[in-house]
Amino acid sequence: VATRSEDLGREPTGRTVAGHPLVLYRTEDGEPVALDDRCAHRGFPLSRSRLVGDNVQCGYHGFTYAPSGVCVQVPAQPDVPGRVRVRSFPAVERRPFVWVWTGDATTADPAEIPDPGWIEEDWAVLTGVLRINGSWHQMHDNLMDLTHLTYLHDGVGGTGRYAETPPDVTTRNGRVRVERRIREDGPGAGWALGLDTAVLRHATTEWRSPALILADVVITPDPPENAPDRSATIRFFHAVTPESPTTLTYHWALARDFMVDNEELTERTLDQTVTAFQQDVEAVEWIHQLRRDFPPAEPAEVNIRVDGAGLRVRRIIADILAEEDADISNSTISNGAPE
Amino acid sequence: VATRSEDLGREPTGRTVAGHPLVLYRTEDGEPVALDDRCAHRGFPLSRSRLVGDNVQCGYHGFTYAPSGVCVQVPAQPDVPGRVRVRSFPAVERRPFVWVWTGDATTADPAEIPDPGWIEEDWAVLTGVLRINGSWHQMHDNLMDLTHLTYLHDGVGGTGRYAETPPDVTTRNGRVRVERRIREDGPGAGWALGLDTAVLRHATTEWRSPALILADVVITPDPPENAPDRSATIRFFHAVTPESPTTLTYHWALARDFMVDNEELTERTLDQTVTAFQQDVEAVEWIHQLRRDFPPAEPAEVNIRVDGAGLRVRRIIADILAEEDADISNSTISNGAPE
Amino acid sequence: VATRSEDLGREPTGRTVAGHPLVLYRTEDGEPVALDDRCAHRGFPLSRSRLVGDNVQCGYHGFTYAPSGVCVQVPAQPDVPGRVRVRSFPAVERRPFVWVWTGDATTADPAEIPDPGWIEEDWAVLTGVLRINGSWHQMHDNLMDLTHLTYLHDGVGGTGRYAETPPDVTTRNGRVRVERRIREDGPGAGWALGLDTAVLRHATTEWRSPALILADVVITPDPPENAPDRSATIRFFHAVTPESPTTLTYHWALARDFMVDNEELTERTLDQTVTAFQQDVEAVEWIHQLRRDFPPAEPAEVNIRVDGAGLRVRRIIADILAEEDADISNSTISNGAPE
Repeated sequence: VATRSEDLGREPTGRTVAGHPLVLYRTEDGEPVALDDRCAHRGFPLSRSRLVGDNVQCGYHGFTYAPSGVCVQVPAQPDVPGRVRVRSFPAVERRPFVWVWTGDATTADPAEIPDPGWIEEDWAVLTGVLRINGSWHQMHDNLMDLTHLTYLHDGVGGTGRYAETPPDVTTRNGRVRVERRIREDGPGAGWALGLDTAVLRHATTEWRSPALILADVVITPDPPENAPDRSATIRFFHAVTPESPTTLTYHWALARDFMVDNEELTERTLDQTVTAFQQDVEAVEWIHQLRRDFPPAEPAEVNIRVDGAGLRVRRIIADILAEEDADISNSTISNGAPE
Repeated sequence: VATRSEDLGREPTGRTVAGHPLVLYRTEDGEPVALDDRCAHRGFPLSRSRLVGDNVQCGYHGFTYAPSGVCVQVPAQPDVPGRVRVRSFPAVERRPFVWVWTGDATTADPAEIPDPGWIEEDWAVLTGVLRINGSWHQMHDNLMDLTHLTYLHDGVGGTGRYAETPPDVTTRNGRVRVERRIREDGPGAGWALGLDTAVLRHATTEWRSPALILADVVITPDPPENAPDRSATIRFFHAVTPESPTTLTYHWALARDFMVDNEELTERTLDQTVTAFQQDVEAVEWIHQLRRDFPPAEPAEVNIRVDGAGLRVRRIIADILAEEDADISNSTISNGAPE
Repeated sequence: VATRSEDLGREPTGRTVAGHPLVLYRTEDGEPVALDDRCAHRGFPLSRSRLVGDNVQCGYHGFTYAPSGVCVQVPAQPDVPGRVRVRSFPAVERRPFVWVWTGDATTADPAEIPDPGWIEEDWAVLTGVLRINGSWHQMHDNLMDLTHLTYLHDGVGGTGRYAETPPDVTTRNGRVRVERRIREDGPGAGWALGLDTAVLRHATTEWRSPALILADVVITPDPPENAPDRSATIRFFHAVTPESPTTLTYHWALARDFMVDNEELTERTLDQTVTAFQQDVEAVEWIHQLRRDFPPAEPAEVNIRVDGAGLRVRRIIADILAEEDADISNSTISNGAPE
C-alpha cells in the first residue's frame, strides 16, 4: 500500500516503497500513476514538480514524462533521446487505498490484492497512516502477538484476557492465522450488541502477505441462545510497507458493522485507535533505537509459545526473499530482518 | 571565497574551506588572517577564542598564535616549544570578498583572483551567502545550465526563452563559456533601457575556476538602430566553495549599471534574487538527499546537448584533481564528484 | 556513578553506563536495582515499563523480572522457561550517588568506592549532572589541567594564578595527584576565612580511578601566624562515566566547610559552578565536533609540561584496558581514546 485514496490527487506526491522513492499522482481521468521519483537527467525529485495534463514535468529543467515513464520533452532541442525515461510501476486502486508493485512488472497480479468487498458498503470506516522509524519485522511481531493488548494498551481498549488466553495458530497457503475465543462477562460486556449479556469475542488475525494483515473481532452473545441472530464485527486492515530497513509506513483501516451511524462512537473509536497505535509506534521505535545504538549480544531475543505465529511469518518472508532474484531493493530490505 | 568583507572583523570567525576548518579575523590594521581553527594543544576551536592585539589566544588554556601561525605563549612555563604552531593560510581581500588559498602556500597566486575592477565603482551591488547541504558539483551543474531558469525560477525572473534557445559553448585556457542571444519583444521588454522597444539579451556565463563563475547579461535595443548607444548590464559573481563532499558555501554578488540609485528596484532585485537562489538551494539539496538516501542505479544521469558546458567543467575539475598531489583535503573533496 | 540518589525512586529510569543501557529503580525497601534495559523477549526497554512490587514488568508483553534478573512471569503460559532472564548489575548507594559495576560481577568490590565520609555531615553540599557529547578522555584532560581556569573560566571563579603556577605531579598506587600552592593577596582574598588577610590556596586534584576524581581547595591565612587555626575547605567530586565512545555523563558534587548556613553564598556558588561547568561542556563538545567532522592530521595534539598529569592518566587507562579481557563493552569504550 503506497497511499490512501484520499491522499492522492492532482498534486505529485512523494512516497517510498521497499527502497524505491516514488512520485504518485492521478491522471485527469483519476487513474493512479507511480513513477521513479528521480528525473533521469540530474535526479531532481518529480514529487517536487508539476503536472502537465497526464504527464509530470520536472521542476528543474522541464524533462516531461508520460505515465509510462517515457520522456516526451527535453529543453533546448526538439528531439528526445530514446534512452531518457524513468521506471513506471504498476499501480491499482482498491479504495480506500492505492497499491503499487515494485517487483518485476510482469509478475504483478492485481488478483493478489484483497477483494474490495472486504469492507461492506454500509459499514463505518476509519483509516489512518503512520510513519515509523523501525523495522517492518518488528511491526509484524506487534500485530501477530496480541498479548501486548493487555500491557501496552492497558487503559485504551486493552484487556487482561489476551495475555491469559493461548492462541490457536494455523498456516495454510502461506497465510498464518491466529485465533482466540475470549469470554467477557463484566458489566457492559454486551454493549456492542445492545444487550445486557456476557459475550464471546472471537478474535482472528490473518497474515496474508508481507504487505497485509487482516483481523476480525466477532462478538456474539454467550451463551448464543440469549440472542442467536445478534453479532457485531470489527475488522482491521493493517498494511505494513517497508520504506527502508529502518523505516516503514503503516496504513490502517478499521470498520464496524454495528451502530454505524453513531458518530460519537466513531469519534471515540478514532481517539482510542490513534492512542493505541501511537503506543505501538513508540514500542517499535524504542526497540529499534536500542538495537541501533547498542547492538545486542546473541541471542538478541528469546521466544515463548505465544511467538509461534510471528516466527512462522518470519520464516515465510525469509523463504520469499531467498526465492527472489537478489535485486538491489530486495536485498536492501532483507538486511533489516532480525537474525 | 571564505567570507564577505562585511562579515569579517575583530571577532574570530569560523569558516570551512575545502575540508579545512579555519578561524578568520582582521589584524588591528584590517588585514585578513586565516589560521587552522584548531589549537595545536588539545584541538580547541580558535574561532571560539579571543584576539589579543594581532594574535589569537586559545580560549581553553591560553596558547597564543601570531598571524604566521607561530605560538608565542603557553601556560605555566616561560618558553614555548618550537613545534607548537598552527597552519597559516594565504588570505587576500578583493572587496566585497576575502579569498583564502588552502593548497600549497608557495603556489598561491593573487593574480588568479579576478581583477577588483570587475564591478565598476558606481554600480549598484548586492551580495549574499548561502550554506548548502549538497555537492559543489551539483551547484556547478546548476550555474552552467540556465535552462533551469525557465522551470525552477518560473515566476521569479525566469523566462521561457532559455529553455528554447540552444547555447553556444566554447572552452579556452581552462575556462568554459556559455552564450545565448535571446530576443524579447513582449510588453515592457525594454524597461531596463527605459525604452519601449524589443531587446536583445546577450547572456554569458564563464566558468573561470572551481572557485568562480562570472556571468553577464547585456541588454541592447533590437534592432540596435532604435538607440545605438543604449545598453544595460547585469553582472553575477558566483563563488562555490566546497566545505566537504556534502556541504558547500555559495557567496554571490549581483551588480547592475542602470538605475543605480533606484532603491525600490534594488530591493525588488534582492527579493527576487533571494527567492530564486533559495530555489537553487532546494534543488541541490533535494537531489543530494535522494542520492544519499537512495543511491541510484547506474547510469545515475543522462545527458543531452544542453549539458555540454557542465560536462566540460567536470572534466576540467577531474584533470585538476588528478594532477594535484593526493593530499587529504583534495581526495576528500574529489570523493564528492558525480561518477 | 550511574545516578544521583535523589534522581532514583519507584519509577524505572534509563541510564547508560560504559556501553550498557540500564534500567534503574529502588525496591520497596529503597535498595537500588540495576538491570539490562532490554527485555529478553523482544528488546523492549524496561525503563519504559512499570514496577510490580520489587519486580519490573515489561510494558510490551508483561515479562516480569526480579531484581536478580530472573524472569518470574510470561504471558499466555503458566511456566517460565529458565533461559528467560536479563543481566543484573551490582548497585551500591553512597549518598549522594549510586554506583553500578558493569564488569564481571564477581570482581565488584564496594571497598573501591570512596568512603561515604568524604563529605562531613555538616558541610554545605551541591550536586549536579551533565550529559556531554564528547569523549570521556577529553573530560579527564579538562579536570587534570586546571590552567584552563584562567582562560575558559575567566570571569566565573577563574584566576590568572593557575596558568602562572607550574603544578607538582605525583603518582602512587595508580592514583595521580596534582598540587598547586597559590598565594592570593588582592582585596578580599581572605573572604572565605572571614579575615582581611592574604591567603594560601592549596589546590589538590587526585585522579583515583577512571570513574572518580576528587579535588580539594584548602585556604589558610598567609602567613599562617595571622590566624593559625583558621582554614576553609572546598571539596569537589567529579565522576566521569562514559556512555559510549562519544557520549558521557558527568556527575559532580561540591561541598564546603565554611559559612555552611549562608544560603545566599550557596546559591551564588551554584550559579557560578553551573556556568563554569557549562563552559567545560562546551569546550569538550567543540573539540569533539572538530575531531569528528574533520579528523586531524597527525600529530593531533602537542603536549607541554602542564600536561604531565593528564598523560599519566591516559597511560593508566590504556594499561587497565590492555589487562582486561577484550569484552565488547570495553573495546567499544577504548576506541574513543585519543591516539
